[in-house]
Amino acid sequence: MIPKTMRAIHYDGKMIVENAYPVSQNGLGEALLRVRMAGICNTDLELMKGYMDFSGVLGHEFVAEVVQGAPEWLGKRVVGEINIAEGECEMCLQGIPSQCYHRTTMGIRGHQGAFADYMSLDVKNLYAVADNISDEEAVFVEPLAAACQVLEAVHIQPRDKVVVIGAGKLGLLCAQVLRLTGADVSVIVRRERPYQFLQKWGIRGVSRQDVPSKSAHVVVDCTGTSEGFAEAVDIVKPRGHLVLKSTYEGLPSADLTRVVVDEIKVIGSRCGPFDAALRLLEAGLVDVASLIEASYAIEDAKRAFAHAQQNGTLKIMLTF
Amino acid sequence: MIPKTMRAIHYDGKMIVENAYPVSQNGLGEALLRVRMAGICNTDLELMKGYMDFSGVLGHEFVAEVVQGAPEWLGKRVVGEINIAEGECEMCLQGIPSQCYHRTTMGIRGHQGAFADYMSLDVKNLYAVADNISDEEAVFVEPLAAACQVLEAVHIQPRDKVVVIGAGKLGLLCAQVLRLTGADVSVIVRRERPYQFLQKWGIRGVSRQDVPSKSAHVVVDCTGTSEGFAEAVDIVKPRGHLVLKSTYEGLPSADLTRVVVDEIKVIGSRCGPFDAALRLLEAGLVDVASLIEASYAIEDAKRAFAHAQQNGTLKIMLTF
Repeated sequence: MIPKTMRAIHYDGKMIVENAYPVSQNGLGEALLRVRMAGICNTDLELMKGYMDFSGVLGHEFVAEVVQGAPEWLGKRVVGEINIAEGECEMCLQGIPSQCYHRTTMGIRGHQGAFADYMSLDVKNLYAVADNISDEEAVFVEPLAAACQVLEAVHIQPRDKVVVIGAGKLGLLCAQVLRLTGADVSVIVRRERPYQFLQKWGIRGVSRQDVPSKSAHVVVDCTGTSEGFAEAVDIVKPRGHLVLKSTYEGLPSADLTRVVVDEIKVIGSRCGPFDAALRLLEAGLVDVASLIEASYAIEDAKRAFAHAQQNGTLKIMLTF
Repeated sequence: MIPKTMRAIHYDGKMIVENAYPVSQNGLGEALLRVRMAGICNTDLELMKGYMDFSGVLGHEFVAEVVQGAPEWLGKRVVGEINIAEGECEMCLQGIPSQCYHRTTMGIRGHQGAFADYMSLDVKNLYAVADNISDEEAVFVEPLAAACQVLEAVHIQPRDKVVVIGAGKLGLLCAQVLRLTGADVSVIVRRERPYQFLQKWGIRGVSRQDVPSKSAHVVVDCTGTSEGFAEAVDIVKPRGHLVLKSTYEGLPSADLTRVVVDEIKVIGSRCGPFDAALRLLEAGLVDVASLIEASYAIEDAKRAFAHAQQNGTLKIMLTF
């Protein structure tokens, strides 16, 4: 039996942990999911600072069970692509539904988020989770897919030198994905803990001053800051690739003259392929479990968010 | 007989028209050129505002005659690649001498410029000019090569919609080169005169408000301004290409969040292939003569620069 109301984390200028939020009815082609676990992403923190003028139920990293609609999915454990495409625009017809002109985005724009007991989602967006992937790991499918998307932006070759700037959650996932290409990967680290993770994974952690100017074929900037962009533009070789993985607060200043003079290719990169991320997790090729900092019950969401907002915090989980 | 001194336009915090500047001696592998005609580029104007902390003889758009050294070139009419590569660095070995780590750049960094009666230049940098190309046209080889370089940055396809922002000298050259791909090219114009040129060439001149958001596969920004970049980011389609052709004063602000969310590829583009530009001129496929605004004798350089600095001025030539 599906209840009429549920627990949900609602944001509307301030965060409210609701106890009696209405459970939405499935629309055409949708399944109702019961959320099992969810993760707090930096984008959630940005939304609470005003990004996208968001109001509604937050959350887009989750694992759930299908409880209603779509008989072939009933009872299955799933994750879900966060961009809900309308299916008929130019981008959709080109096979790029994540860029659909009429899309909504779960917990970000026009679609209820996953920080709630229940959520309806288009069946097209569902991906089954293999039994050997834990709930904790499955919550990482969305950010791991975003890390895989770096490989869509640039053809990384095994002889390339690649530098990741920003050793937070996304940077550490990108580094692990990039390492699988055989390329020479370094990550610029400022803290001890990410350094230890990198060491465990066999990836080089370096400080900024150890990375010469114009030394990397590819730089992946996961900082979302002017400073990170400036470092990236300095480190990348002429004609090299600079992949931007994070959104920026406000309008950053950027050395576009250097981009012109060194003929750098700056490539924005956003959501990625869920199926690839699931394959990497199923094969045990990426370690996400180490990135979990703490878990909180949804009732403790305020404490969970306060923890997530502290500098250097890795993944905070919400349990239901 | 080569004289010991010559006329030259020297900049060192202020511009001086010298009458007795020493004629340089050829180094190893260099030819001495007698300059026949030269053009004032926006980069020259930027250098005089402090770009690159330049001091020395300005100028890098020219046509000349070989008067000493390199017997196989003697008496030939030539243009010259402005980047003087050292030949042994990683970029040179990759066949990209214009990005040589140890390069000098004529009239910009470490190498005498072309606004002088004589100039020494590495023989490797010389390109013979066909008889059916006039001196006036030959002066455009360098900026036309830079326009051709857009085609190195992006594979422009005949079905693409391409928008050029900035209908100055470089924008009008880019538009003409892009038109040759068969793509659907528009140029955003703000003045009547470039509009008339475009009409003559069969290229669409449009105003900003006629160009919808996310409508162009490729945008070429020739403005070198924050405003131009903001327009470009708005006009380009998701996953589209944005080519930056001009350097920027200072550190412009740039909507890098939009670059990430729309997964835009921003590509810096600088100097281009002289041989391609010469082929286009020899075949009469590009009209450069229309872009000449006025010619001044080198003695009148101050008036020439004052004219070049007026908004909307097209090419100012210097004659020797």
